[in-house]
Amino acid sequence: MSYKQIIYSTAPDPAIDPSLTNGTFSLKTVPKPTDVPADKLLVRAHYLSLDPAMRQWLTAKRSYIAPVEIGAVMRGQSIAQVVSVGTSLASTFQPGDWVVAYSGWQEYAVLGAKEVEKVVLPPGGRPTDAMSVLGITGLTAYFGMLEVGHPREGDTVVVSGAAGATGMVAGQIAKIKGAKRVVGLAGSKDKCDFLVRELGFDAAINYKDADWRNQLKEATPEYIDVFFDNTGGEILDACLARAARDSRFVICGAISQYNVAKPQGPTSFMTVISQRVTMKGFIVFDYADKYPIAQKELASWLSEGKLKRKEHIVPGGIEGAPQALVDLYKGVNTGKMMVEVAPVSEALTAKL
Amino acid sequence: MSYKQIIYSTAPDPAIDPSLTNGTFSLKTVPKPTDVPADKLLVRAHYLSLDPAMRQWLTAKRSYIAPVEIGAVMRGQSIAQVVSVGTSLASTFQPGDWVVAYSGWQEYAVLGAKEVEKVVLPPGGRPTDAMSVLGITGLTAYFGMLEVGHPREGDTVVVSGAAGATGMVAGQIAKIKGAKRVVGLAGSKDKCDFLVRELGFDAAINYKDADWRNQLKEATPEYIDVFFDNTGGEILDACLARAARDSRFVICGAISQYNVAKPQGPTSFMTVISQRVTMKGFIVFDYADKYPIAQKELASWLSEGKLKRKEHIVPGGIEGAPQALVDLYKGVNTGKMMVEVAPVSEALTAKL
Repeated sequence: MSYKQIIYSTAPDPAIDPSLTNGTFSLKTVPKPTDVPADKLLVRAHYLSLDPAMRQWLTAKRSYIAPVEIGAVMRGQSIAQVVSVGTSLASTFQPGDWVVAYSGWQEYAVLGAKEVEKVVLPPGGRPTDAMSVLGITGLTAYFGMLEVGHPREGDTVVVSGAAGATGMVAGQIAKIKGAKRVVGLAGSKDKCDFLVRELGFDAAINYKDADWRNQLKEATPEYIDVFFDNTGGEILDACLARAARDSRFVICGAISQYNVAKPQGPTSFMTVISQRVTMKGFIVFDYADKYPIAQKELASWLSEGKLKRKEHIVPGGIEGAPQALVDLYKGVNTGKMMVEVAPVSEALTAKL
Repeated sequence: MSYKQIIYSTAPDPAIDPSLTNGTFSLKTVPKPTDVPADKLLVRAHYLSLDPAMRQWLTAKRSYIAPVEIGAVMRGQSIAQVVSVGTSLASTFQPGDWVVAYSGWQEYAVLGAKEVEKVVLPPGGRPTDAMSVLGITGLTAYFGMLEVGHPREGDTVVVSGAAGATGMVAGQIAKIKGAKRVVGLAGSKDKCDFLVRELGFDAAINYKDADWRNQLKEATPEYIDVFFDNTGGEILDACLARAARDSRFVICGAISQYNVAKPQGPTSFMTVISQRVTMKGFIVFDYADKYPIAQKELASWLSEGKLKRKEHIVPGGIEGAPQALVDLYKGVNTGKMMVEVAPVSEALTAKL
């Protein structure tokens, strides 16, 4: 028996080439292990997480995490199921357990206990929630909005990349916490309609409209108190120009800048001084000791229907991951982007 | 009797034109008042303050302060002496009192009591200190460094515009507060020598040297914990690329960007996320309720010799103010830039 891996082969320059023959990644087939070491688990990946940060992991620059090495399996989280358990882990894991796994882009992985986290779901929860709204995505939105953005009652909160996995949770959290106006920026009319109709945003602006800057101005009559930024570039710039006094700019991501050779910073930077803006970058890992509290609150909002989830699942197996990553930067997704490596119907008898 | 005023005449586009015939400013001669209203003072300006922020006051954009109106006397502080006192202020002021005056660019001004502040000097103090190291300049350095930058023992602190009035005080305060390394960026070898030899900076870099980026790297082996920025542009960019984790970037000014048509923001902006940088703009006026405490501490450092002052006084009268402002942006000054409107030797019997 064998299984497939996606290997990081050639550094993107600057764009990712999704071809598996001579592109950024290549396909490798390796034998499936027959034995599992005593302190390891064999897991099968069902859903790979696609994340905007991935592009940064392919760049050999000083960052918050070491880059992926050329020749290694592409890094990434998955929702996986435990297939077999090493003898010394038998009291903790059982075949059939669902886990969030640091498996990388491969169909199977042999992992240590620290590389997986058992999925614990609230009523109505699904395995994939553990990688999206209750996982890193939701936690990023939670800590970025609450610990960096500090929305207050009466505030105007703007979220860029608002139809993305993190953005949509960030906007909903601001609303739950009493923001007066929550405005989303997204890349299509459908996404904007979804934000307003399904998620309760007060307004949403398609930044591909010619007059989007004017729409932003009209949507923020009292300026912007909190800006949760996933995109950077021109959108950050336009929002800076609308910054309210003492506003907080949460720098979560800059997806517009990841694939360009020369990144662009904010040009309306004078506003940082005149309006006393605080711009703060953050990395969710820094809040790891508070994950349990956050996950509990997110889970209760999810169960109560206050927080809605949305996923964009790409079918067709692991070979689709490179193209899905390219599509993520194009913004084809509404909600959390995942690649289905194996459908849940193929799972062992689920433990859920 | 008459006196001279400098009037703001034509908006700069984008550079200030110092000509008094058809430039940004014009000269006006007005009669000196013979009577002073009961609730007013007549003051004579001796030294005008030249400040980088002035360029922003000439731009009709949303800012922290309304722009100067075309046709009005140019806004600015001065060190002035009270010449005559309206009857209802006679118990508070006397002719000969030195004041920091919101007089604008004119030789004489009739002002209310709220537009002046009596100069109180520590032992060894000079009237001009009240406008530099003990005035807005020193206060800006004090609050920016301590309330925004929060230098800690062992920190590496970098100051741009370090030979300017605010920068040199900011760097000295960091050193007084126990920073491990204080590095200045300035625009000439003489300025750099002054910072290291006279003010005790650990290193100073001439940003006009071809290899200044490399010098910056070498001067910050443990990266930058606090960056006090007066310049913006490329220097901010280079410092961001050297940001330490959880560093604080104090955005005080951006003198490199004030006179350009298209300001440039930081391009190495990704570091804000990866190193969790906090960039915060501030305006000294927000700390007004704490001025007395700060002035007391600054005065004691000055008296003890821990804090050194340096002034760049342009002689020749008020007509020189427009050219001096242009020269300020060129960086001709080391220390606080002032225009001498009337030497101290012409003062009434000083009250000091």
